[in-house]
Amino acid sequence: MRLVSVIGSSNSNEEEYRTAYIVGKELAKRGIAVVCGGRTGVMEAVCKGAKEEGGLTIGIMPSYDGHEANPYVDIKINTGMSWNRNPIVVASGDMVIAIGGHYGTLSEIAYALILGKYVVGYKTHDIDGIEKARSTDEIIRKVEEFYGQGT
Amino acid sequence: MRLVSVIGSSNSNEEEYRTAYIVGKELAKRGIAVVCGGRTGVMEAVCKGAKEEGGLTIGIMPSYDGHEANPYVDIKINTGMSWNRNPIVVASGDMVIAIGGHYGTLSEIAYALILGKYVVGYKTHDIDGIEKARSTDEIIRKVEEFYGQGT
Amino acid sequence: MRLVSVIGSSNSNEEEYRTAYIVGKELAKRGIAVVCGGRTGVMEAVCKGAKEEGGLTIGIMPSYDGHEANPYVDIKINTGMSWNRNPIVVASGDMVIAIGGHYGTLSEIAYALILGKYVVGYKTHDIDGIEKARSTDEIIRKVEEFYGQGT
Amino acid sequence: MRLVSVIGSSNSNEEEYRTAYIVGKELAKRGIAVVCGGRTGVMEAVCKGAKEEGGLTIGIMPSYDGHEANPYVDIKINTGMSWNRNPIVVASGDMVIAIGGHYGTLSEIAYALILGKYVVGYKTHDIDGIEKARSTDEIIRKVEEFYGQGT
Repeated sequence: MRLVSVIGSSNSNEEEYRTAYIVGKELAKRGIAVVCGGRTGVMEAVCKGAKEEGGLTIGIMPSYDGHEANPYVDIKINTGMSWNRNPIVVASGDMVIAIGGHYGTLSEIAYALILGKYVVGYKTHDIDGIEKARSTDEIIRKVEEFYGQGT
Repeated sequence: MRLVSVIGSSNSNEEEYRTAYIVGKELAKRGIAVVCGGRTGVMEAVCKGAKEEGGLTIGIMPSYDGHEANPYVDIKINTGMSWNRNPIVVASGDMVIAIGGHYGTLSEIAYALILGKYVVGYKTHDIDGIEKARSTDEIIRKVEEFYGQGT
Repeated sequence: MRLVSVIGSSNSNEEEYRTAYIVGKELAKRGIAVVCGGRTGVMEAVCKGAKEEGGLTIGIMPSYDGHEANPYVDIKINTGMSWNRNPIVVASGDMVIAIGGHYGTLSEIAYALILGKYVVGYKTHDIDGIEKARSTDEIIRKVEEFYGQGT
Repeated sequence: MRLVSVIGSSNSNEEEYRTAYIVGKELAKRGIAVVCGGRTGVMEAVCKGAKEEGGLTIGIMPSYDGHEANPYVDIKINTGMSWNRNPIVVASGDMVIAIGGHYGTLSEIAYALILGKYVVGYKTHDIDGIEKARSTDEIIRKVEEFYGQGT
C-alpha cells in the first residue's frame, strides 16, 4: 500500500487548510493512503479530502485513546507519547508533504530529513533538503514523479 | 473502523501459529482490522489469516523503515523505537488478544492492563486481569460479546 | 558510575515503602546511584533513603516538565511519554530491584527481562526469570554479589 | 540541581568542538550539570570540558545499553529509541544551548521551542525563537542571565 505523510499545523490558516484538503483528494484519487498526526488544521483537511474520494486515512495520535482525532481519521494509532509521536508520522510515509506549519512541523521535517525521506514543502520552513512546491498542482506532480509511472 | 490488537511471540510454536491464523481469518470475516507488532510468529499468522479473508492488517514496526514486516502487513507504522513500540500495539486496538508469548508479550499485556483494555488470553502468561479463553471459538465468542450485537 | 533501577508501585503499602527506603539507604552507602520512575510510593521511598545517605537519585519522568517528581529526585529526565517511559527506567540500571508493584511494575519487569537484566524481586509479580529475595538484607546481598568484590 | 541541555552534531568541526568543550568547562565551574545525546562531536566535547572541571554529565543514549556513549558521560540514560530520544534531551534541561548541528540538532531545536525552552544558538540553524550568541562568552553570559544572580 502506498502511503504519504502529510504534515502541517493543527492551527492552519485558510489557504493551508484548502491546500491540504485538495492534496488529500488528489492522493486518494491515485489510491494513495494518508498518514498524519490525526488532529485539526492541515491534518484534518487532508483526511477530509481523502475521505471524500474514498481514500484511507491514518492518524498517529498523541494520546493513548485517540480522543483528539479529527472525524476523518479511519485508523487511530494511539501512541500515548504526545509530541514524541512526530518521528513516527514521517517514518511511516513513503515520502512527506509539508504544508505551512510551526515548530511541530519543523520537528517532523527534521526527522524526515534525518531518515532520508523525500520532503515536498509548500509555504513551510525554509530548510535545506526540502523540495519546494509553489502550488497544489506542483505538489501532486512531485508525488507522481516520486512514485513513477502508473500513479 | 473496528481494530483488535493481536499479540504473541515472534517465535511461536505450531499450535500458536495455527490459532493466530484462524483468529485472523475470523476477525477479517467480521470486518475487524488487525493491529500487531508486524513481525514473525503469531504476528505473521494473524496477518496471513486476515489477508486470506480480505481483511486489513497494520504492523507497528520496531524499525524506521519496516524492513522486518511480515509479507501480510498492509500498513507499516514505522516507529524506530525497537521494543518500546509495544505500548502502541495495545493502545491502538479496541481490545487485545494474547496468544502464547514470551517477555515481549508480557510487556504488552502489562500495558494493555495499565490502559484498562479488555484482554483475552489463550495459553499466555497467567496474569490477574486477563480473561482466559480455552479455544479459538472461545476467543472469537469473546470478541463478539465485546463488540455486542451485529459483529 | 554504578546505577541500579528500583521499580514498584506509586501506590505502595507501608511495608513496601519501608523496604524501598532501606534499599535506597543501603545503595547510597555503597556509592550506588538510583534510577526510578521519579514518582510517589516505592519511587519516593528509595529516593528518600538514598538522599539521607548522600546518594544520587535520577527520576525518569512521565511528563515534559517533571512537575510530578518526588522531592528526593536530584536529576529529572523529562520524557513526555507517560507510561511509555518505563523501558527507559530499567534499561538505564545495571540491574533491577522490584518491590511489590502493579501493572506498571509488571511492564518494567517484562522490559528488564527482554533486555536480559538481572532482576531481584521482593513480594512482586511471580514471573519466571526473576531472582526472589525474601528480605531487605537478601536484596542487598544480591546487589553485592552482582557487583562482586569491593561493593 | 541545575541542568543545561547542550546539543549539536556528532560530526562537529573543530571550532564547534572547541566551543562545546569550553562551554562544558564554564557550566561545570558554575555547578551546572550537562545533559546531551551522549555521543561524539559536540556531545563529547561538552562532556569532556565538564569532567575536567569536576562537573556532572548525563547522556540520553539511543541504544538500550549505552555502548555508544563517549568516555566523559557519567550517567547513561538508555532509551533504546534511536533518534526518537531527541525530545528527551531538550525536555530535561532548564535551558538549551545549540552549537552548530545538522538535522538531529534541528529536531532538538524544534522540540525545545515546542516546549517553550529558552534556546541559545551558536552558529546553528537560523530558526525564529532562538537567541543568537556570537561567542563562547556570550553563551555563558546568557546562561548566567537565565539563572539570575548567584550563578
